[in-house]
Amino acid sequence: MKRFAIITAGGIGTRMNATVPKQFLVLGNLPILMHSIKRFYDFDNSIHIILSIPEEYFEFWKQLLKKYKFEIKHRIVAGGNTRFQSIKNSLDRINEDGIVAVHDGVRPLVSKETIKRTFDTAEKYGNAVASCDIVFSLRKTENGKNFALNRNFYKEIQTPQAFNTGDLKRAYNVDFMEEFTDDASVFEAAGHKINLVKGNRENIKITSPEDLIIAEALLNRVF
Amino acid sequence: MKRFAIITAGGIGTRMNATVPKQFLVLGNLPILMHSIKRFYDFDNSIHIILSIPEEYFEFWKQLLKKYKFEIKHRIVAGGNTRFQSIKNSLDRINEDGIVAVHDGVRPLVSKETIKRTFDTAEKYGNAVASCDIVFSLRKTENGKNFALNRNFYKEIQTPQAFNTGDLKRAYNVDFMEEFTDDASVFEAAGHKINLVKGNRENIKITSPEDLIIAEALLNRVF
Repeated sequence: MKRFAIITAGGIGTRMNATVPKQFLVLGNLPILMHSIKRFYDFDNSIHIILSIPEEYFEFWKQLLKKYKFEIKHRIVAGGNTRFQSIKNSLDRINEDGIVAVHDGVRPLVSKETIKRTFDTAEKYGNAVASCDIVFSLRKTENGKNFALNRNFYKEIQTPQAFNTGDLKRAYNVDFMEEFTDDASVFEAAGHKINLVKGNRENIKITSPEDLIIAEALLNRVF
Repeated sequence: MKRFAIITAGGIGTRMNATVPKQFLVLGNLPILMHSIKRFYDFDNSIHIILSIPEEYFEFWKQLLKKYKFEIKHRIVAGGNTRFQSIKNSLDRINEDGIVAVHDGVRPLVSKETIKRTFDTAEKYGNAVASCDIVFSLRKTENGKNFALNRNFYKEIQTPQAFNTGDLKRAYNVDFMEEFTDDASVFEAAGHKINLVKGNRENIKITSPEDLIIAEALLNRVF
């Protein structure tokens, strides 16, 4: 089955206090995004990689590719105003049957095993979403009150999230809703049942300077 | 109002692959537990600190105190077979009115501001529990299915959790139940409404070797 990966980094985060968007910051010896691309390439050298970044950074990205002698083949697609629109733009470039994994560009520490579990299950059952157990006490807030929950019934959702290409394109053929925080929620709204697979604990989303420090610390440990 | 802190480290974790329990491992220049004790002392030099550790480590702890020339005054209480029992044992030593904060010994990166918010609110309203927003997509699992939730209605719970001493002692005067994952759940089961205050993102619970690496990275950043 043909495999695609959409690495989504269309946004220009403001939480980093950095002059370049976080996805371009350097982690270890490479910009964050190049780590993410490399993970999918290392999993499957023949995977088709689509990178979604803001259009105004196309030229900057090309300079980075040269600077870091980064040669893994990928297509570049302009990000939209929202994550939802960025994914839509990227899906427009996929016109073949297969499985497409959507992955947050700022999760460079996804393991090969997590990627494999996601594709394996999606290839069998039509979709798969990486997830982890909740390791802290969890409470629900409601009308100014809050109460304890049994954390065993809840899951932290990560990416990659992989889907049959045609099914995901159809699912995205709707207007944006507030509840769409990831691709699984869009896919579910289209009537599909979601399959959860095990992610990896280190697969953190880098959104703050603290996260970057944590990722630096984990990098050599994981790979 | 008189202030107490129970630093709970009664367990002997097995996830660390270390020869000593995790609470005694060194973070930066001090064993994890000494960092935790120091946070509360730095917040209030007159706070009464009770440390709960396994009885078989009392001698080892005394050696550590000497080795690290650690002189912050604290009482040592034997941990029980469960966290619940350890807290009960510690509460038996408190016979005065005031506010007691219970804190996981393996959360050495709690900030002074988090401790202050917890005590301030508990002194006003009888209890306060440190918490953080959920920053990932969240799903609920049920009967082999799962569905997306609105994460804005959920909170990650941390420690410290602070309570009126008499109220907490009465709340703990029950048999253990599976749902008691923290002190707030015990207190809530006794009929109290829980007040949430803001924790700090770096206030992680060290339970795996990866967590220790992360904590090392954050240590110099936070303090």
